[in-house]
Amino acid sequence: MPHVKNINHVAIVVDDMEKSLHFWRDSLGIPLHEVRDVPAEKSQVAFLPLAGAEIELVQPTTPDSGLAKYLAKRGAGMHHVCLEVDDIDGMLAELKQKGIRLINEEARTAADGKRYAFIHPESASGVLVELYQV
Amino acid sequence: MPHVKNINHVAIVVDDMEKSLHFWRDSLGIPLHEVRDVPAEKSQVAFLPLAGAEIELVQPTTPDSGLAKYLAKRGAGMHHVCLEVDDIDGMLAELKQKGIRLINEEARTAADGKRYAFIHPESASGVLVELYQV
Repeated sequence: MPHVKNINHVAIVVDDMEKSLHFWRDSLGIPLHEVRDVPAEKSQVAFLPLAGAEIELVQPTTPDSGLAKYLAKRGAGMHHVCLEVDDIDGMLAELKQKGIRLINEEARTAADGKRYAFIHPESASGVLVELYQV
Repeated sequence: MPHVKNINHVAIVVDDMEKSLHFWRDSLGIPLHEVRDVPAEKSQVAFLPLAGAEIELVQPTTPDSGLAKYLAKRGAGMHHVCLEVDDIDGMLAELKQKGIRLINEEARTAADGKRYAFIHPESASGVLVELYQV
């Protein structure tokens, strides 16, 4: 049976990357791995890895993405939690069969080869949940 | 210098524990460690540990707590992220000195002996951040 291994990352949507880095990197002292432009998601992402899971700060770079609209409506804050699974196809099949509402019924492949899919917050205690198979 | 070790847990505020467990435990298959009443926080908490960090589902048990009001206003969803630190007193002193707004200026002690403090979302990209020293 497919299973969840760990929290891979917590994604935080931000409106001012420098101000956010002042907190997460400079004040808490979490080492910044890199800040990367992700054109496919119309955003800039700062990766701050910890021993197990990672903090990701995501700032929209255009006003027309879903993330930009989320930010405009709700303000900065936690956006989604990403869980690492050992078998994403098996997990999606299982969730579908159990009546869980999926945003992506099939796993998608990111530029770096990771396979991912999102579960709808309606089925997940109001939380946007991403599944990752690394 | 005090430092952040890992994400200890992600806390999710829920309005229907059974429905939430149907997703996190029964559909995702994350083992439930226990459901505990926490009278001091007027809530019931379900602990779902993963390899590194933990998912915590928190349901208010009275309508008058801060958490109950948060739930009534914003609905179910992510409530806070908890970071494990090696020296909570040193970290709080450091944050205060850097102008970070703290909810608890001094660490408090939970019933199980863990020491914790909350950082105000205003200083933390809109995220309620808990610090833990286990």
